[in-house]
Amino acid sequence: MPDPFAELRHELAVANRILANEGIIDAFGHISVRNPKDPSRYFISRHRASELVEPSDILEMTLDSKPVVPTSLRLYSEMVIHGEIYKVRPDVNSVCHHHAPAVLPFCATGVELMPLFHLGGTLGSKVPFWDSRDEFGDTNLLVRTPEEGASHARALGPHFMLLLRRHGASLAGTSVRECVFRSIYTTRNAELQLRAMAIGTPSPLSPGEVEKCGGHNLGSRGVERAWEYWVTRLQKAEAMWAAAGLPRLKGLAEVARPRTAGLPAARRKPGKKAAGGRRR
Amino acid sequence: MPDPFAELRHELAVANRILANEGIIDAFGHISVRNPKDPSRYFISRHRASELVEPSDILEMTLDSKPVVPTSLRLYSEMVIHGEIYKVRPDVNSVCHHHAPAVLPFCATGVELMPLFHLGGTLGSKVPFWDSRDEFGDTNLLVRTPEEGASHARALGPHFMLLLRRHGASLAGTSVRECVFRSIYTTRNAELQLRAMAIGTPSPLSPGEVEKCGGHNLGSRGVERAWEYWVTRLQKAEAMWAAAGLPRLKGLAEVARPRTAGLPAARRKPGKKAAGGRRR
Amino acid sequence: MPDPFAELRHELAVANRILANEGIIDAFGHISVRNPKDPSRYFISRHRASELVEPSDILEMTLDSKPVVPTSLRLYSEMVIHGEIYKVRPDVNSVCHHHAPAVLPFCATGVELMPLFHLGGTLGSKVPFWDSRDEFGDTNLLVRTPEEGASHARALGPHFMLLLRRHGASLAGTSVRECVFRSIYTTRNAELQLRAMAIGTPSPLSPGEVEKCGGHNLGSRGVERAWEYWVTRLQKAEAMWAAAGLPRLKGLAEVARPRTAGLPAARRKPGKKAAGGRRR
Amino acid sequence: MPDPFAELRHELAVANRILANEGIIDAFGHISVRNPKDPSRYFISRHRASELVEPSDILEMTLDSKPVVPTSLRLYSEMVIHGEIYKVRPDVNSVCHHHAPAVLPFCATGVELMPLFHLGGTLGSKVPFWDSRDEFGDTNLLVRTPEEGASHARALGPHFMLLLRRHGASLAGTSVRECVFRSIYTTRNAELQLRAMAIGTPSPLSPGEVEKCGGHNLGSRGVERAWEYWVTRLQKAEAMWAAAGLPRLKGLAEVARPRTAGLPAARRKPGKKAAGGRRR
Repeated sequence: MPDPFAELRHELAVANRILANEGIIDAFGHISVRNPKDPSRYFISRHRASELVEPSDILEMTLDSKPVVPTSLRLYSEMVIHGEIYKVRPDVNSVCHHHAPAVLPFCATGVELMPLFHLGGTLGSKVPFWDSRDEFGDTNLLVRTPEEGASHARALGPHFMLLLRRHGASLAGTSVRECVFRSIYTTRNAELQLRAMAIGTPSPLSPGEVEKCGGHNLGSRGVERAWEYWVTRLQKAEAMWAAAGLPRLKGLAEVARPRTAGLPAARRKPGKKAAGGRRR
Repeated sequence: MPDPFAELRHELAVANRILANEGIIDAFGHISVRNPKDPSRYFISRHRASELVEPSDILEMTLDSKPVVPTSLRLYSEMVIHGEIYKVRPDVNSVCHHHAPAVLPFCATGVELMPLFHLGGTLGSKVPFWDSRDEFGDTNLLVRTPEEGASHARALGPHFMLLLRRHGASLAGTSVRECVFRSIYTTRNAELQLRAMAIGTPSPLSPGEVEKCGGHNLGSRGVERAWEYWVTRLQKAEAMWAAAGLPRLKGLAEVARPRTAGLPAARRKPGKKAAGGRRR
Repeated sequence: MPDPFAELRHELAVANRILANEGIIDAFGHISVRNPKDPSRYFISRHRASELVEPSDILEMTLDSKPVVPTSLRLYSEMVIHGEIYKVRPDVNSVCHHHAPAVLPFCATGVELMPLFHLGGTLGSKVPFWDSRDEFGDTNLLVRTPEEGASHARALGPHFMLLLRRHGASLAGTSVRECVFRSIYTTRNAELQLRAMAIGTPSPLSPGEVEKCGGHNLGSRGVERAWEYWVTRLQKAEAMWAAAGLPRLKGLAEVARPRTAGLPAARRKPGKKAAGGRRR
Repeated sequence: MPDPFAELRHELAVANRILANEGIIDAFGHISVRNPKDPSRYFISRHRASELVEPSDILEMTLDSKPVVPTSLRLYSEMVIHGEIYKVRPDVNSVCHHHAPAVLPFCATGVELMPLFHLGGTLGSKVPFWDSRDEFGDTNLLVRTPEEGASHARALGPHFMLLLRRHGASLAGTSVRECVFRSIYTTRNAELQLRAMAIGTPSPLSPGEVEKCGGHNLGSRGVERAWEYWVTRLQKAEAMWAAAGLPRLKGLAEVARPRTAGLPAARRKPGKKAAGGRRR
């Protein structure tokens, strides 16, 4: 019986490896996607570094972050980060949690992240903080219990990025690709802010600019162009897998191709083929 | 019918990939070249990350940034950056727009870029700022309308580099290779300024030094040596394309070779073959 | 006669190469492991850069840091760092000494390292300093005599990381894998502290958090996940050895596999196969 | 007729490529070696990026920096940096000139380089500054005339590293390998100083420590270990040449092997084979 979620598993494995290849996730961190056919379930890899995740590692979870099919495989200890956000945010279809080096200094100091260039607008109007110590006292800082997960989701509120004091960041998106895009460009924005603060006073985007940039960046246009780029870079990095005699991830050539761009005009949506080229 | 612009398309694809390989352009940014046979037209890639651009992606545009041949392909939304500069600067034959990490802190803070070493002299006597907010209020920060493009070109004035507040940089050159050279070494200079400001007060080149350095660096000698270097590095990076089973860019070995150096003496300009070796 | 320590030699060679591949050790630095069958001996490579160490380079030393079998091979000049720690710390089974770029600024300034994120908790409750000048005056800064080694071990005391003024760092672990994990994540924490101090006042983990994090990170779960990741990255990096026509390290596929995860359930410890998946 | 300098040309090509591979030299910069059989001559590459230099690019120069054999090849414009140092420093057999990113901030600000860790001791007791403006006013900052070269050599005086304001650094060594070692580790020390100054007040090595460290590091032991490491890294990087269909540098396996370590005892100098292993 063919797996009805084969494509979704593959896309999530690709997303995992892109986040590793672009320096967002190292041995730790994870990304998930909501089941598009059943919003009360989501998919996430078993306990494994993102760079190594294969489609067969992807398991389905309930929103209580229990495996739908019992398994003896090790699971991530922080899955409630994902499940509890899906519970309270029906608009969110993908969640990423990471500890990117450029973001951690904000988690360590409490300095607020500001949108400093158009692509950084994807961090939205505000990036709130969550401190596990406030409600739960001394812990190992991981978000492991349903209560911790729910508190973390409340702190995110209606926003798309949350900083965890002394820990890392969690991000939400309406799709896997948007979530990857936001994870990468908010990290680039954090890097920029670190460097800008060292030479002067950075002046952020205005609220109106943030709104307009956020809209643009998360349009399929920019996301698809970046996706093609990241997948192609991944393909080249993965050439090392084969050279090392390891099985590489299949099917990257297919997902590298943007879903609409570059297709023969006949396969496009009618009305989109303007004589002067398409722009927005 | 052979394409009379085949060599030009190839060089522009190489320039795109060099800028990606040297860390100047990621998924976003672009470089163009004026049509050497018709100054009222220019060439630029379709909507695609620079690292992936192939000669067949290169399209011809009018100076109003409309495709000469109607196309259903997606186009960059910021082509007016290029077209409007070509309109008012007949000395300019290539334009690059990017968001290099080392340059963005200056765009975020308004700190002026200063030439701090001889190769940084290529940024010229002054790097002006352009703020879209001044004339156009809240936008998504992209330069998309003819009015925005014209305002941006006015801000560049007679200079060769322009910083866009909260956005990135635009650069001009008398040739593609010079534009690539300037894009890379002004970014190296920005990196240097960031680090120098962290430990002391950088003292810039004098106006006389800038003038003399600019002249030297943009002489064909330095540009050709750097071009051979960047193309060779690109060739090695492109080895990963083949290893990944992807088609790599052809003809790099040919363009790596400097146009004059290393040729048999007989093919050189007479009078250049001095017994004591050629230096300047 | 088969070498009873073949697996141990191989693991130590892998550890050497991981530390090189992850940027902790360059041409200089070393890691050792205590003989699990004879606590009065330890294993360490001959005088060689870690990136190049092969199992056949690994020699056995007494705790006085003399080779058990006489050899004409060159030996590291700082082996007493290892031997003298093993003498006074029976709980320690692996020692690493390095000069990672992120850690050196603390050695140069005397600024204290603080645990700033959960994975940095592995540096423990305190990272003491040792200054060779205090007891030994002007030296070449290397730790070469038994007296210097003993002084260095006393400075470490009951801790797991020691900073050497104007020199580098020494780390201890209960196993090779834990020592590698601590060496890498304390370096990431140092990097974080450098960046956090540039934008604000970092607030460290509380003592209670450190204790809980240290316990978690050094549990086999996190260490094994990271180990699989680092070995896989090493495998890909080592593909270049083969491409260069050099003999690559054998057997990496075997050690990449975590010792328990991913095994058929039947081969796992009974009682660990919970219907809801295993988490902690 | 076999080239009596074939080995020397090869070693200098390797040195060029190591300096590129380790990030010291990009498209610009050069390294030379004095003719061991005729101290009034030296060898240096024709005008070419170091990463690309082949043995056949190496030409012989008089100390007036004129080619011994007339050539139509382009030559570096700054060869007097090398020739004028060789004239006044009979102890120097190799000279390197570069613009490494970590060193340039000191050239831009006039902040003094300090030895901050044992391997940085190789910068010696003092790193003087030379400012072309002092004697020559506004220039293009390059060191091109015999007068400029002589002034530059006077500024170096008895030292081994010189900083050129708004330009770069020049280094001297008693051999090519020592010069490469000094170029790399003084750059690592500069990187360290940049980071240390950002978090506190770095305390340098004492004069006595510098003297003892300098002696140690430049002993053949440390230099040979680092040389094997850098050559092996270069071999792996060069695998990309072959993958790209380009001719790679031959003979690296031979020069990677340290001149004494690892040889069968019988081929070593008598008296060096101590039962307890060799250390210093």
